[in-house]
Amino acid sequence: MAFFKKKYQSKKSRARLGEINTAHGQVKTPAFVPVATKGTLKTLTPKQIKEIGVQLSFVNTYHLVVSPGVDVIEKAGGIHKMADFNWPLMSDSGGFQVFSLARQNFKSQITNIKKNLNNKNQDNQRRADIRGEESPLVKKISEDGVKFRSLYDGRLIEFTPEKSMEYQMKIGADLNMAFDECTYYPATYEYTEKAMERTHNWLVRCVNYKRAQAIGKKQGYSFFNKQYLYGIIQGGTYTDLRKKSAEFVASQPVDGVAIGGVSVGETKKEMRKQVGAVAGLLPDDRPVHLLGVGQFDDIIDLVKCGIDTFDCVEPTRLARMGILLSFSDSNKIDINKGIYKNNLEVVDKSCGCWVCQTFTKAYLHHLFKQKEILGYTLATYHNLSVMEKFMGHIREMIGKDLI
Amino acid sequence: MAFFKKKYQSKKSRARLGEINTAHGQVKTPAFVPVATKGTLKTLTPKQIKEIGVQLSFVNTYHLVVSPGVDVIEKAGGIHKMADFNWPLMSDSGGFQVFSLARQNFKSQITNIKKNLNNKNQDNQRRADIRGEESPLVKKISEDGVKFRSLYDGRLIEFTPEKSMEYQMKIGADLNMAFDECTYYPATYEYTEKAMERTHNWLVRCVNYKRAQAIGKKQGYSFFNKQYLYGIIQGGTYTDLRKKSAEFVASQPVDGVAIGGVSVGETKKEMRKQVGAVAGLLPDDRPVHLLGVGQFDDIIDLVKCGIDTFDCVEPTRLARMGILLSFSDSNKIDINKGIYKNNLEVVDKSCGCWVCQTFTKAYLHHLFKQKEILGYTLATYHNLSVMEKFMGHIREMIGKDLI
Repeated sequence: MAFFKKKYQSKKSRARLGEINTAHGQVKTPAFVPVATKGTLKTLTPKQIKEIGVQLSFVNTYHLVVSPGVDVIEKAGGIHKMADFNWPLMSDSGGFQVFSLARQNFKSQITNIKKNLNNKNQDNQRRADIRGEESPLVKKISEDGVKFRSLYDGRLIEFTPEKSMEYQMKIGADLNMAFDECTYYPATYEYTEKAMERTHNWLVRCVNYKRAQAIGKKQGYSFFNKQYLYGIIQGGTYTDLRKKSAEFVASQPVDGVAIGGVSVGETKKEMRKQVGAVAGLLPDDRPVHLLGVGQFDDIIDLVKCGIDTFDCVEPTRLARMGILLSFSDSNKIDINKGIYKNNLEVVDKSCGCWVCQTFTKAYLHHLFKQKEILGYTLATYHNLSVMEKFMGHIREMIGKDLI
Repeated sequence: MAFFKKKYQSKKSRARLGEINTAHGQVKTPAFVPVATKGTLKTLTPKQIKEIGVQLSFVNTYHLVVSPGVDVIEKAGGIHKMADFNWPLMSDSGGFQVFSLARQNFKSQITNIKKNLNNKNQDNQRRADIRGEESPLVKKISEDGVKFRSLYDGRLIEFTPEKSMEYQMKIGADLNMAFDECTYYPATYEYTEKAMERTHNWLVRCVNYKRAQAIGKKQGYSFFNKQYLYGIIQGGTYTDLRKKSAEFVASQPVDGVAIGGVSVGETKKEMRKQVGAVAGLLPDDRPVHLLGVGQFDDIIDLVKCGIDTFDCVEPTRLARMGILLSFSDSNKIDINKGIYKNNLEVVDKSCGCWVCQTFTKAYLHHLFKQKEILGYTLATYHNLSVMEKFMGHIREMIGKDLI
């Protein structure tokens, strides 16, 4: 079966219906990709995730390298098996977290790491190593990548294009991202261009690494073990760089294309401009992922540029704060508010998810005011159900040329 | 159908098999009763609770009066409906929390209540009332009961035998407790006797209250709305008082008998002595509940005294600390320990619950180290599954006269 198949092209825009086929199942696109950062989709059990209808979820390579560690994940049979995630998964390259770590002031983080190291279970040598260091966290940043200390246990961790590929292979997600540098906003043209070129060089190294690993296992664009590689378009807020990057990434033998760095410190308008700039350059025969974007209005606008998948922490993060997505009520309600104390209505009449079939706003309000864990679970379940239902509407509208 | 039916009497001890029949289903006894304090069985969804096989769970009247409030619970159709608890429930009288509140030093709690009151949603008059008070929390303790300020929102709350019955009727749990005073350890003989007599007087008032409410609704020992009343045996550590209390409670027209105050500040040996002292005085035709006790060894020893149901927060509280019950490994393991970091075995091979069928110790260790909510859910699910399996063994052994 083809990895990606375009099923329908809207007559109204670049929006399209498609399917991504992986060893762990099929994803009907456009799809929302909830973020299961550390190998757990915050609060939910695998059964609940399946019940909600999540098709594809996202794991963060950086976080999984730190804990539980990629070696134990590999020994467990991959993160699918370890976390009982019996559906397609996408992993990022780690670049986003690694470079964000490299940019920060580490003073407060050093306190944190030293506190962790006081744990008597820690390796004595490692503790001694760190105490002798001037700048304990980031050891080296170069064209090659980054070396740094884990904030969690002081272990020395290296991220290079090859290492990122190795980590992602061990994690075993179906869809992988090439190692990239995501520039922050604002960044100069010169710096952004340099970072983009670095990202392109790293993509070539990722492709080569996968190719070398895959002798005898090649199939279609995919090089290894049914894991598929996405190249990442960067270029910051400079449309000429964005276009150059899109052309370069599309010219590579990658399985999919991702657009990175559009959600970092920019306005929504700016984000739409950058995605719009590359829309005409995206490969028609390969899936397109937009990193870190996924509010209702973003999705409606950006499927029109040909985006197939969107990952975003917002629905799950808001849920844990008691912000419940809604098809009415200005798109969200804050269940912590006193007005819900005696409200015996369901969260959203038009939602119909298990939470909306079963519980009242008054009960959810009570759980949140009492900081009961079940509240976070129910809110997450509801918010992701809303996202799935919303994406269903989007697909339906594309099929009818309404988008 | 009879409320309680003894099905089998062990030839070896006072242990017995029975069934408690309620409007929300049947409980096979002996049974463990997990505690859903605030109308949520910490971390678990109703579906998960059913799947585990929990037959009966416990809610705390004091906590539910404070939040969400009994009026909204009643409007929602009772806590069964509000929390989707579609199985039998037991509520306590509130006495335990109320008297423990009355005994404490409130300095730190006053800070807490004032902090809550800074919430701008609070009622201005109530805030002004409290600021003008010398001792804002406990307003009055008497033979009649206790008046105090809610720690949560400063509301004035009254607990008397009649109020306790009214609250419990609004909550709607199937099995209710008469209002009692639980003496703390150590307490003098004189104080304990006085508290016991107060508890007996209150039991009569509870019975009268339910009887007055129930004109035209009487059935068997039950007076109102298919809610059944348990009287509570007190008497502290004095066996003669315990016996006197057991005789008094058994002489009353109550549906069941509970033994209170044996888990407060005493040794396990002392607890067994007090339960043993009343064992021969417990009514054979009514169910017997032991309040606040439920470790493996306690249950094994105390079913022999004729105890039918045990409530205890321990399995769920330990779960949230990462302490997992086990049929081997000295009855429990601490999943936070570094030795589990790379351990790809299940928590307990002989458990067979969904968690043990699905996840490894390494994954649970990772979730706990990262403070991921799913860890608390999985641990609670496992611990309660162990308790259910354990109670199944106990019932089997009674049926074979092995206990």
